[in-house]
Amino acid sequence: MAATATNRRVVLKEYVEGYPTEEHMELVPGGEVPLRLTGDEPAGSVLVRNLYLSCDPYMRPKMSRPLRESYTAAFVPGSVITGYGVARVLDSSDPRFAPGDLVWGITGWEDYSVVKPPVTAFLAKISHHDAAAAGGGVPLSYYTGILGMPGLTAYVGFHEICAPKKGETVFVSAASGAVGQLVGQFARLAGCHVVGSAGSKEKVELLKSKFGFHDAFNYKEEPDLAAALKRCFPDGIDIYFENVGGVMLDAVLLNMRVHGRIAVCGLISQYNLKEGEKDAVRNIGALIAKRLRMQGFIEPDHKHLYPKYEAWVLPYIRDGTLAYVEDVAEGLENAPKALIGLFHGRNVGKQLVRIADDE
Amino acid sequence: MAATATNRRVVLKEYVEGYPTEEHMELVPGGEVPLRLTGDEPAGSVLVRNLYLSCDPYMRPKMSRPLRESYTAAFVPGSVITGYGVARVLDSSDPRFAPGDLVWGITGWEDYSVVKPPVTAFLAKISHHDAAAAGGGVPLSYYTGILGMPGLTAYVGFHEICAPKKGETVFVSAASGAVGQLVGQFARLAGCHVVGSAGSKEKVELLKSKFGFHDAFNYKEEPDLAAALKRCFPDGIDIYFENVGGVMLDAVLLNMRVHGRIAVCGLISQYNLKEGEKDAVRNIGALIAKRLRMQGFIEPDHKHLYPKYEAWVLPYIRDGTLAYVEDVAEGLENAPKALIGLFHGRNVGKQLVRIADDE
Repeated sequence: MAATATNRRVVLKEYVEGYPTEEHMELVPGGEVPLRLTGDEPAGSVLVRNLYLSCDPYMRPKMSRPLRESYTAAFVPGSVITGYGVARVLDSSDPRFAPGDLVWGITGWEDYSVVKPPVTAFLAKISHHDAAAAGGGVPLSYYTGILGMPGLTAYVGFHEICAPKKGETVFVSAASGAVGQLVGQFARLAGCHVVGSAGSKEKVELLKSKFGFHDAFNYKEEPDLAAALKRCFPDGIDIYFENVGGVMLDAVLLNMRVHGRIAVCGLISQYNLKEGEKDAVRNIGALIAKRLRMQGFIEPDHKHLYPKYEAWVLPYIRDGTLAYVEDVAEGLENAPKALIGLFHGRNVGKQLVRIADDE
Repeated sequence: MAATATNRRVVLKEYVEGYPTEEHMELVPGGEVPLRLTGDEPAGSVLVRNLYLSCDPYMRPKMSRPLRESYTAAFVPGSVITGYGVARVLDSSDPRFAPGDLVWGITGWEDYSVVKPPVTAFLAKISHHDAAAAGGGVPLSYYTGILGMPGLTAYVGFHEICAPKKGETVFVSAASGAVGQLVGQFARLAGCHVVGSAGSKEKVELLKSKFGFHDAFNYKEEPDLAAALKRCFPDGIDIYFENVGGVMLDAVLLNMRVHGRIAVCGLISQYNLKEGEKDAVRNIGALIAKRLRMQGFIEPDHKHLYPKYEAWVLPYIRDGTLAYVEDVAEGLENAPKALIGLFHGRNVGKQLVRIADDE
């Protein structure tokens, strides 16, 4: 008889309207689960021990009652929350993985997960962590961020969608977050002038001192966002990396330069507003006057670029060119609070949760 | 001493807020002007007799007090209104033109204009009208429309910005207008399924019977635009050619398909609203969920494509493949009324004004 273990799980209790609270989620003690595949799972399944869970803004829309088709299915009340994470393979009927492998991709908010096809398509083997002993390794947790979905998101959104040219001006909102901190640094590496916005004095300092933003401002202290942008970009913005939406987007539209590009990555300011209460965007006319391109994108559409991105970014991580700040919560029991904190800007840097120590 | 003629002029009396009225413009009797260049004009100037004037929606933003930089300068109260037109060259110090030539481009709302550099860059010689005698000609007025700025606008917006593929679904708003009627027919030629919206029963009929739209609806009779679009596009919209903005754009965003494209050509529903009163667009989230590209454009950026467009479109005009409907007002004195009518949807097809008969 195979060994078993207790599997705690975080489930969504009910659909959320407005801001999520800890009441919307529940840590279920859970029962015993086998530590080997039983053979009843679909072919290609992978049993993992979860090590790190990633808290990402896109998870909020999945907590709402599904009103219309979306690129990502809503969570199901009573079921375990899913998201990106890093895990150790315990057993696998997917030939790509063997017991002991470290993987990153979509898993469950629980101690152990059986990841089944087609979700296993999102799992990828981690090879560069093992090189740590030789001085070339990177923290395993980075696969929830700079070496995971947020990293490829920043790379695709900035380099592929925005096609930056040296000397252009770049504005990044939510600039100290998982994606924003990377976009700022990628922009600097590309020879752009980059300014970021964030929601606290501490974060604004971080942008300038740690991430190399040329300038930054606290949007909560700016009564007139359009004026703040005009101050930071007297000649206008060539590239806007959109993480927040709402009134910031409306202010940015007024400050874009001719032939500017807007990569629409996220709209975190809007995710907790009810339908019909979303902020009004009124400056659509700027799209014509400035001949702007505004393009939404999601990372899964660009997975094929991951090897290119990884090869590009790893040397910059190893030689310290890129800084990367994480906000690590401890323990599965603290995962709901960590996720909720994202929507109040409580995280400083990439929010993740360490749920087991198995490196 | 050179011959002279009386030059009537339409001037903007004052900046407009809200809908323009005839009170905002004035037909000034004007004085005698010489029918040859006097030598006092800048080198490269062209003296023309205006024949046709074009009424285009983009002229409305130019009638507002300029609040911010735009791609097109505001009109100046007390000065003659300018716009696209067709004219006969009377005299020229631009080596591209000789007396007797027919030209199209930016001219004045007056009987005679001296077009000066750099505006002369917008003037182009008309060669295909002369072939009329041989059965291959096209009406001169077409150079205010299908063979002029609106034609190239439709071509660039649809073929270059939207990159249509056979079998895709296309929605066109203001579909019986100068640009819309062409986009609909270009879409049909490209093997797309195309639906248009317009503001009267008569126009809707025209879309289906004359311009080959597969379906059409009267937006004024649809209490729920999103539902109307869902009815016409049960599987969603691949391409939206945006001429109106406002609530229509918000409804379209909900009905776009994954990887759809929106060419933002005009926002006529918004041009007469005051700052701060523009319609709210709230469904920006669809850009991410559907990975949409939304791109503003103006025809002058794409002038280099005119020869390619002209070569492509002329055979379709000559063999009757393309229908083209004009709404022709008579006389310079009726030009203000014709322009104002655009913003109330009074025109059926391309609105222009014939101010002299000199073909």
